[in-house]
Amino acid sequence: MLTVNSKIEVGSVGTVDTQLLDLAEPLKLDCGRELTSVRIVYETYGKLSPARDNVILVCHALSGDAHAAGYSRAPNEVGTRDGFRADERDAGRGAALGWWDGMIGPGKAFDTNEFFVVSTNLLGGCRGTTGPSSPNPATGRPYGTDFPVITVADMVRAERALLHELGITRLAAVSGGSLGGMQALEWAVRYAHEVDAIIPIASTHALQPQGVAWNAIARNAITTDPNWQEGHYYGTANAPTAGMGIARMIGHMTYLSAPALGTKFGRRLQSGGDIRYQLTEPEFEIESYLRHQADSFVKRFDANTYLYMSRALSYFDLARQYGAGDLGAAVGGIAARTLLISFSSDWLYPPAGSEELAAALRSAGKAVELHVIDAPYGHDCFLLEEARQTPIIRQFLAL
Amino acid sequence: MLTVNSKIEVGSVGTVDTQLLDLAEPLKLDCGRELTSVRIVYETYGKLSPARDNVILVCHALSGDAHAAGYSRAPNEVGTRDGFRADERDAGRGAALGWWDGMIGPGKAFDTNEFFVVSTNLLGGCRGTTGPSSPNPATGRPYGTDFPVITVADMVRAERALLHELGITRLAAVSGGSLGGMQALEWAVRYAHEVDAIIPIASTHALQPQGVAWNAIARNAITTDPNWQEGHYYGTANAPTAGMGIARMIGHMTYLSAPALGTKFGRRLQSGGDIRYQLTEPEFEIESYLRHQADSFVKRFDANTYLYMSRALSYFDLARQYGAGDLGAAVGGIAARTLLISFSSDWLYPPAGSEELAAALRSAGKAVELHVIDAPYGHDCFLLEEARQTPIIRQFLAL
Repeated sequence: MLTVNSKIEVGSVGTVDTQLLDLAEPLKLDCGRELTSVRIVYETYGKLSPARDNVILVCHALSGDAHAAGYSRAPNEVGTRDGFRADERDAGRGAALGWWDGMIGPGKAFDTNEFFVVSTNLLGGCRGTTGPSSPNPATGRPYGTDFPVITVADMVRAERALLHELGITRLAAVSGGSLGGMQALEWAVRYAHEVDAIIPIASTHALQPQGVAWNAIARNAITTDPNWQEGHYYGTANAPTAGMGIARMIGHMTYLSAPALGTKFGRRLQSGGDIRYQLTEPEFEIESYLRHQADSFVKRFDANTYLYMSRALSYFDLARQYGAGDLGAAVGGIAARTLLISFSSDWLYPPAGSEELAAALRSAGKAVELHVIDAPYGHDCFLLEEARQTPIIRQFLAL
Repeated sequence: MLTVNSKIEVGSVGTVDTQLLDLAEPLKLDCGRELTSVRIVYETYGKLSPARDNVILVCHALSGDAHAAGYSRAPNEVGTRDGFRADERDAGRGAALGWWDGMIGPGKAFDTNEFFVVSTNLLGGCRGTTGPSSPNPATGRPYGTDFPVITVADMVRAERALLHELGITRLAAVSGGSLGGMQALEWAVRYAHEVDAIIPIASTHALQPQGVAWNAIARNAITTDPNWQEGHYYGTANAPTAGMGIARMIGHMTYLSAPALGTKFGRRLQSGGDIRYQLTEPEFEIESYLRHQADSFVKRFDANTYLYMSRALSYFDLARQYGAGDLGAAVGGIAARTLLISFSSDWLYPPAGSEELAAALRSAGKAVELHVIDAPYGHDCFLLEEARQTPIIRQFLAL
């Protein structure tokens, strides 16, 4: 039974400020090291209730940032993922629109009339939160690859530390797509009694082997670029833009489905007419599009952050971390209600993975709901199919 | 009705010599240029009939060479594709075994008791046939990227010129997998009355947009490697091995299916026990495997040849070339009987493409047979699933 009123007024969270907070305590990490002077950049949308019981944490994916909704006061060109159709969607609305603006706001999936939504730039990020491009307090110079290898659990620790400093000790929900969904799952297992509900979207309890491989190839493209300089390229005249471009192209391809590529580009030639016998210049529209994606990405994203995020999402494996290989055992302690959403054409985080997780949760007697949305845009659906996710999420949160 | 005798004696073509022939005439190319002093390297298996009517031309794929069957007299480490399972298959049999040895020989799919099988290294190749690493007669130095951009039609012209010099003007069949199958199709359209039958395997009339994109990314990885030096790296101390490694990893991934990767590697860690918080060293077995694939490939293959082959197979498009965009019109002149084989798990050359081609041929009243083999190894099936292709091909050739 749908409890959503279809006449709901949908609005924008308006113009928002990005805020920052320096954690008072060092952050202990899975690898055994600890980080001092951790800064976390975040945004909030909606109003915190007096009982502080209406908080939804929204977690971004590999290349996102804290600016999830509304318009950034300082125009922020990276607010939205420059993905398939996202370019078009944002055309004319300003580049400062948040990456999940369609999902967060009055009357939207994460309804700011009701909830206080918090979004942070992840630990290891390059958009304000402490990461490899931040100054290492020990040297005053950017960490580079002296930054510790972090995990999804470490990201979640940082989020929790921020929330505690904001006086928030309980979450009504945690949600996110892709790597963001992994954080939701990590929260539910690690801090089982601090989370009422989780909504992992286009996500998984463990990246499929094919995804592990694509991520490894993308990282290799960066680390074999001589301009990477073993990760210490900050302040030099060079950065691994070529390798980052290749990494982005690979990543971008894994976010799109074959049919969507066929529909959008087909085999259309750049010249319109015929081939031009060019070895290196783009001949097909899809080639030109990929170069554009690469060029715009390398301008806005740090290569080392890409490496650390990619490593963390490849590592993530609930069964290994919490069940000695047994997924059922790993999820046995979850107390949160779970809503899983996946997309039929997502081959990077295929529905079969969500089905496996749902089955494990069900076997463990947990409250779980799985929706596989039939949509053609591949993994990018979590950013694009707002209209179809919204009623599912609103109904789940209304329970 | 199967005409194949299951008690057939299957044997090897034994030890073979690789031969070479210098074309007497220049080769006119699609791009308008012509190549002089073209050398073609080839092998033959079986005996040419007195009527010269038992010739089967076998065409290799992107990274192959002329050594398709038997053992090379000069041990030839590149005789077999170092692909998935091929490593295992050839272990202990010597690295000099031809890349399609399981398909060519007495009693095999291409039965050398009956047929005279010819295999050439493609125009543009790096295993003896004239290509970008060959000396440019105009300068005496390797062509590099002064080599003309070639097409599948150009490869076929070179094959035909070789055959004419060998006194062969008619083919009983042309076959090959992937790019090899494209050559078979090109033969059937371009030289319709010189070919009795074609057997394109795991191939297509036009690479899908996703394949176009992956090939473009692989080429970009090579051409953005500073050691590529605009293609003129021969004789310098450096070659674009890093970019080639990435290109090979990308290619290799597209040849494998997700389930096959899952079965072979899963998410198994290198260390066996737990993650080691390593940013750049392989942590998962699949990461280590991909690096091994890259390392062995860059030792045996020329980066420029990779670029030219990849461009040619991306360009290939029967409908554009011969039908002004209409596939039915393009295949209207085909006289050869056609056997198409594709594999259920091949996502680079998906069965849907073969089905589209079969439908076009059928609509044009052509004799066509399509077999979609249900097998898990992805595009690599054409190299691995010999046992299941053999009866289909033998029966087709016996008609």
